[in-house]
Amino acid sequence: MPAFSRLIRFLAKDGLVYYGDAILPQGITDISKATSARVIKGEIFGSHTVTDTTAEIKHLLSPLARTDIRTIRCLGLNYAQHARESNMPLPTYPVLFFKPVTAAAGPWDDIPVPLMAQDGEGLDYECELVAVIGKEARDVPESRALEYVLGYAVGNDVSHRDWQLKRGAGQWGLGKGFDGWAPFGPGIVSTDLIPDPNSLHITTTLNGQLVQSSSTRDMIFGVAKTIAFLSRGTTLLPGDLIFTGTPEGVGMGRKPQLWLKDGDKVQVSLEGVGTCENKVVFSNPTAKL
Amino acid sequence: MPAFSRLIRFLAKDGLVYYGDAILPQGITDISKATSARVIKGEIFGSHTVTDTTAEIKHLLSPLARTDIRTIRCLGLNYAQHARESNMPLPTYPVLFFKPVTAAAGPWDDIPVPLMAQDGEGLDYECELVAVIGKEARDVPESRALEYVLGYAVGNDVSHRDWQLKRGAGQWGLGKGFDGWAPFGPGIVSTDLIPDPNSLHITTTLNGQLVQSSSTRDMIFGVAKTIAFLSRGTTLLPGDLIFTGTPEGVGMGRKPQLWLKDGDKVQVSLEGVGTCENKVVFSNPTAKL
Repeated sequence: MPAFSRLIRFLAKDGLVYYGDAILPQGITDISKATSARVIKGEIFGSHTVTDTTAEIKHLLSPLARTDIRTIRCLGLNYAQHARESNMPLPTYPVLFFKPVTAAAGPWDDIPVPLMAQDGEGLDYECELVAVIGKEARDVPESRALEYVLGYAVGNDVSHRDWQLKRGAGQWGLGKGFDGWAPFGPGIVSTDLIPDPNSLHITTTLNGQLVQSSSTRDMIFGVAKTIAFLSRGTTLLPGDLIFTGTPEGVGMGRKPQLWLKDGDKVQVSLEGVGTCENKVVFSNPTAKL
Repeated sequence: MPAFSRLIRFLAKDGLVYYGDAILPQGITDISKATSARVIKGEIFGSHTVTDTTAEIKHLLSPLARTDIRTIRCLGLNYAQHARESNMPLPTYPVLFFKPVTAAAGPWDDIPVPLMAQDGEGLDYECELVAVIGKEARDVPESRALEYVLGYAVGNDVSHRDWQLKRGAGQWGLGKGFDGWAPFGPGIVSTDLIPDPNSLHITTTLNGQLVQSSSTRDMIFGVAKTIAFLSRGTTLLPGDLIFTGTPEGVGMGRKPQLWLKDGDKVQVSLEGVGTCENKVVFSNPTAKL
């Protein structure tokens, strides 16, 4: 059992980076509202303790350090309405793709858009519940699958539809895997606080306008079923992230279609967890390619 | 620059696991023939030295420990004849998919086939040149891309065609990503010894019969071009593996088709590197799913 309730990683006002257990005012559950945390000492996926030392938060970072993240798995087409808006058949099995660890980013980080993803159609958002694996899971039954979860976050499965769908022989990973294209956070809420991950409101707000609004209840394959399936023949490791798919309302599925542009602010929110707000920043590398 | 010529990881006769620089008799280049190695101390992707201490090899292991491997990228359809036998169009860009780190295995490890991949059609082999990234690479030009390579190995991109092509909404990762489905080795040959990775003979032998035989010269996207492309907008990390695609002759492309079965012995070989020999073992988990 993790010792924390709401795991965060942050740059503190003392200039150091800590893991911590976020301190929230009574009645507030959005981790991004925390201004201080109890410092955690030790290994997040090993022996650790929440100390009595409090540190003031200057800036929230990716809830896990890159070295603590192993494999990032993502589900596609896991909400029925989203599968329909994507003109794809409902899947018989969970549809799996991957992002590299370098895609992971923090809840307030910019989304850097490299030159090769600034053309064509189109840059898109996807709010998703993210399950973080806490201990090794292999061939686990659905009834026990949630025991292997460290906690839950909300993430944005940032996607470039042309690279995802048209330029990669149908393989989705490249167009979803650029540096920083899997921001998540604002922290990781322990399973103690979220006994049922499939009853949570989830939204995306783009420049202040609500564009996705659904419930994780509408997942085709719920979190427990997904973990059980993914663990068949495959060992899930502590530090694996599972992005569990997005509901309807993505830019690609709207009429007219709606693509992210330089400077846009995207907020993804999950009930009981909080909000990530990331700004889209078109980068202009000096290196000629 | 790495200090070694042929990096291996092995269980020694003294019962300990070491990284080492394989010692080969004059005129032999197949690392799997090594019986001893100079022990390497330190971090493979940091400061390390090849010591004067020699250890005797009992068993070769995955050339990198799981904790030293980050992201496993694979190319599909990267040899023209293989794309044709797969009834797929020649790709305009490198076709990228991923395997989880748990797929990585050693040159002599069994290929465990879980229950869910024992049915249907069909279990297949794919010999591939594997490039191991040695230092961070982002937006690197093709002309300098090979400077970021630690060395080369040969690997088997083990695939279950039904899961790969039919049951995952066209996403290839699940049917290629089970535990142990990316054996590689027998070691990692330094770029000093292989200045041109695109001039090497590559083969697969199944139960003693040659089934794939080609040259890495026939890659559509050569190693340097591949690394340059994959680094666009994406940081490649030390310990990333890139499986660079397979030539023609896979079981799916043969007439009649040829599927791996329990007990089969598959050898994949790369000129100047050596041979991995892995036995197919159908596992029968006791856990009911």
